[in-house]
Amino acid sequence: MQRSTIIVAGGSGKRMGAAVPKQFLLLKGRPLLMWTIESFQRFDPNMQLVVVLPKDHHATWQGLCAEHGFTVPHTLVSGGAERFHSTLEGLKAVEHDGLVAVHDGVRPLVSAALIARCFAASEEHGAAIPVVAISSSVRELTAEGKSTALLSPSTPLRESRAVDRSRLRAVQTPQCFRLPLLRRAFELPYDPAFTDEATLVERLGVDVHLVEGEEHNIKVTTPFDLKVAEVVMGAQG
Amino acid sequence: MQRSTIIVAGGSGKRMGAAVPKQFLLLKGRPLLMWTIESFQRFDPNMQLVVVLPKDHHATWQGLCAEHGFTVPHTLVSGGAERFHSTLEGLKAVEHDGLVAVHDGVRPLVSAALIARCFAASEEHGAAIPVVAISSSVRELTAEGKSTALLSPSTPLRESRAVDRSRLRAVQTPQCFRLPLLRRAFELPYDPAFTDEATLVERLGVDVHLVEGEEHNIKVTTPFDLKVAEVVMGAQG
Repeated sequence: MQRSTIIVAGGSGKRMGAAVPKQFLLLKGRPLLMWTIESFQRFDPNMQLVVVLPKDHHATWQGLCAEHGFTVPHTLVSGGAERFHSTLEGLKAVEHDGLVAVHDGVRPLVSAALIARCFAASEEHGAAIPVVAISSSVRELTAEGKSTALLSPSTPLRESRAVDRSRLRAVQTPQCFRLPLLRRAFELPYDPAFTDEATLVERLGVDVHLVEGEEHNIKVTTPFDLKVAEVVMGAQG
Repeated sequence: MQRSTIIVAGGSGKRMGAAVPKQFLLLKGRPLLMWTIESFQRFDPNMQLVVVLPKDHHATWQGLCAEHGFTVPHTLVSGGAERFHSTLEGLKAVEHDGLVAVHDGVRPLVSAALIARCFAASEEHGAAIPVVAISSSVRELTAEGKSTALLSPSTPLRESRAVDRSRLRAVQTPQCFRLPLLRRAFELPYDPAFTDEATLVERLGVDVHLVEGEEHNIKVTTPFDLKVAEVVMGAQG
């Protein structure tokens, strides 16, 4: 079945405390986003790759591609206000009715094996996403309006309850779908509670298939994560 | 108020795929557990440190201390079958009625500032633990008996639901308590569902105070974590 991948890189870099949007930060000397794109190219050199970037970043990206001699073919698309809108713009650039992966631009360490598992499971089940166990104990805040207090280290919280972590899984990408299904999901009205493509598809009454993810497939959103990614890249040669 | 710390290091190392129990694995050339003990000594050089280790590991540990010239004073105690029993054994070695921290032996990167915040909050509120936000989307498995299927990468799962991650926090250590409170909690009958000291204290009807934890304060339970810890140690000089 024909396959495309939408790589969503809408971040403005605020959380990194960096002047550079996080998808452009250097990992082993090259922007994160290049590593991410190459992970998918390695899986299937002929697959359509759609890269969604804020319009303001297109010139920067093209400059970086020239500077680094980055020639992996990809369709560049302008992102929207939120992740929902960015994925939707990417989806418009896909013209077949096969399978599509939606992947975070800042998850450069995804393996070809995981991409293959997710595509295969989505072909069979319609929708498939990678998940991993959560290794620490988990608590849930129980008092309304308390969660924002955690933004300040000096403002401790009180009300919470223990949660059974054995039933929880952290969600990664690529999230893979049969294209007709994902297109139908994106016809639903925009909901500000949108968190990822899988939750949208579920609102059609479709079960999302869970696939075992990878510990190394981290989302690089802090300077700490960037250091970790460098270690993993180093270990892989 | 007088303070003690119980460092629980009961792991057998199975998850690391290593012959060596994980608390003895080398981080910058020295066993993890030494770094952990020193983090607390740095916070308060005069505090009582109780180290709980399986009896079978005592000779190994004493040999390692001699080999590495490790002379930080600590009370060595034999652990029990489960974390619950190990903490209880550590608690028996504490003789005052002040404050106690219970800390994972494999969290070597805890800062003095975090230890100080947790002790201070426990003095005020009775029980205090550090927590951090969870950065990925989270799902909860909804079908009974499905969770064990995830142990095999080739066995995907289906039934799950999205969880609002903004209300979830990952729990770290040190978990700090007023000693009379923690002693009362440990008089409760042993419950196999025990996950940490905080959940036990809650069963007395006491609220556990949440303190902002630290991204770097990771639990080293896989070879990947060990690499990450080495990066953090390197960055800190």
